[in-house]
Amino acid sequence: VKITSFKTNSKIARRELGRALTAVENDLDNSDVVINETFNSATKSKIFGITGAPGVGKSTLIDQLIKTFLDGGLTVAVLAIDPSSPFTGGALLGDRTRMYSSGLHNNLFIRSSSSRGHLGGISSKTPEMIKVIEAFDFDIIIVETVGVGQAELDIMKCAHFTSVVLSPNMGDSLQALKAGLIEIADLFVLNKADIAGINQLEKDILFALSLGQSTLKKPKILKTSSTNQTGVLELKKVLLEEYEVLNASGEMDRRIKDSLNFQLELGLRENLKRIFNKFDSLSKKRSSIEEEMYKYKLSPRAAANKLFKDLEKNL
Amino acid sequence: VKITSFKTNSKIARRELGRALTAVENDLDNSDVVINETFNSATKSKIFGITGAPGVGKSTLIDQLIKTFLDGGLTVAVLAIDPSSPFTGGALLGDRTRMYSSGLHNNLFIRSSSSRGHLGGISSKTPEMIKVIEAFDFDIIIVETVGVGQAELDIMKCAHFTSVVLSPNMGDSLQALKAGLIEIADLFVLNKADIAGINQLEKDILFALSLGQSTLKKPKILKTSSTNQTGVLELKKVLLEEYEVLNASGEMDRRIKDSLNFQLELGLRENLKRIFNKFDSLSKKRSSIEEEMYKYKLSPRAAANKLFKDLEKNL
Repeated sequence: VKITSFKTNSKIARRELGRALTAVENDLDNSDVVINETFNSATKSKIFGITGAPGVGKSTLIDQLIKTFLDGGLTVAVLAIDPSSPFTGGALLGDRTRMYSSGLHNNLFIRSSSSRGHLGGISSKTPEMIKVIEAFDFDIIIVETVGVGQAELDIMKCAHFTSVVLSPNMGDSLQALKAGLIEIADLFVLNKADIAGINQLEKDILFALSLGQSTLKKPKILKTSSTNQTGVLELKKVLLEEYEVLNASGEMDRRIKDSLNFQLELGLRENLKRIFNKFDSLSKKRSSIEEEMYKYKLSPRAAANKLFKDLEKNL
Repeated sequence: VKITSFKTNSKIARRELGRALTAVENDLDNSDVVINETFNSATKSKIFGITGAPGVGKSTLIDQLIKTFLDGGLTVAVLAIDPSSPFTGGALLGDRTRMYSSGLHNNLFIRSSSSRGHLGGISSKTPEMIKVIEAFDFDIIIVETVGVGQAELDIMKCAHFTSVVLSPNMGDSLQALKAGLIEIADLFVLNKADIAGINQLEKDILFALSLGQSTLKKPKILKTSSTNQTGVLELKKVLLEEYEVLNASGEMDRRIKDSLNFQLELGLRENLKRIFNKFDSLSKKRSSIEEEMYKYKLSPRAAANKLFKDLEKNL
């Protein structure tokens, strides 16, 4: 894989980036090389996470947002994380390349990726895929996820700035807010501002925000309407301005550190799995301890402690 | 903590069970003892997981279901997992003891527990808490969780039988189904059968089911109305009958094994954390490797591999 600036030669970059992402997504032989090469390259993409339940009009809004970025001469990459079923593999988001009206624009790169049943709305490969995209030199990276509640919490570990899209027709928005969205949002986008209930939705959010800890920075609230195409220019302006505020305050550096630590944790878990397969004595011990557990002679917690004691001895 | 049958002496059992659950939930000093003692005790509680988005009328339905179980002379425990925010700790479900109209019934035990921001709608303590409840000898244990999409997938690792409650007014039910609910449900309960859209909802689900793998056992579909109090006796009947079918086929044993393996995995992860704190040389090494990662000299994956290499050497 040849790392090329998308700004300098979008044609070659598009092809090479596609290959690099496929390697990382499917854990191909060259994925380690790709990750190491792209990880070291210093770039300055602004990474915007955009999340929300199905039906809030997220994709139409993102479509319009992409256009305003492209109109401003910026290069844009979109990574759409599709919460496909872990069992049937059915896709939810559909083909974004065809769905976005700017799909074939020269300055736009679009990629869909399955979350593969990984809890949290993103896949274990998502952070590394974002890093690969960054290395190909884009001004803007948009990460789109879908879900309601706790599932979105992971996106804040991948993006620099997280927007949550809500709409009045989704019912119990206040309860969804209580379940954790309040804390991950840097910005609330109230979409479908043209339909009834938008003012109640805003009141609900303001109320929910008033219950939160006063020391936290309150997220902004912005009303948009994809139908009337209003608020999208304002959305672009707010995103870029707020990004700079967080960057200047050092908050962005703290978030990037958090994201790295989260990825480190995932890597350690993978190693743990590997080590039980590597040593024959360990994998036999594991089988026999599991048998005791199945017979209710050992609780899972006691079984884990026992396995780790043997791990410490054996290595 | 004294393990007592709730059927024999509900007053003492209620008090002791409350204490035991508090010990496990908060990881108190005696939690290991409680877990070991309750784990070995063979009991035969039927564990029913009931899940659904906020607003589908889940709690009213569960309230009526509890009553029909109690009317049949059964002892019932309810564990309501509250997806409180990991940051503010705000509760979503409210006080179930007061919300259920049978809250003070002699044969009913109710406990709320916070998911504490743990992804997946349950807390890392949930499986052990269920095991503790089982040891106190209940006929029925109901585990209630809330959420939409991937977040529910964990409940199938705790319950013997999982019901997903849907209602026509929740919008995009088909999309929610595609996102994974199809595979975890043993039973779809279509609540609010009295309002418009119930037939479309049923059609949507049948269509979604038709897309799934034909080898899997299709979940049943049942219509209920909490308002008209219809379908609840039928719900009770189906739950008990289907439980027996799964039990007789050996499927229940397979599920219990899966659940134990899931808990073992959680225990191994906790040990992994512990071990990095235990050895001074390891924790120093970790700090220095993290610093390299922050400077983009090492990718998180490479950092994790390096840390594990040192772990293997040091032990």
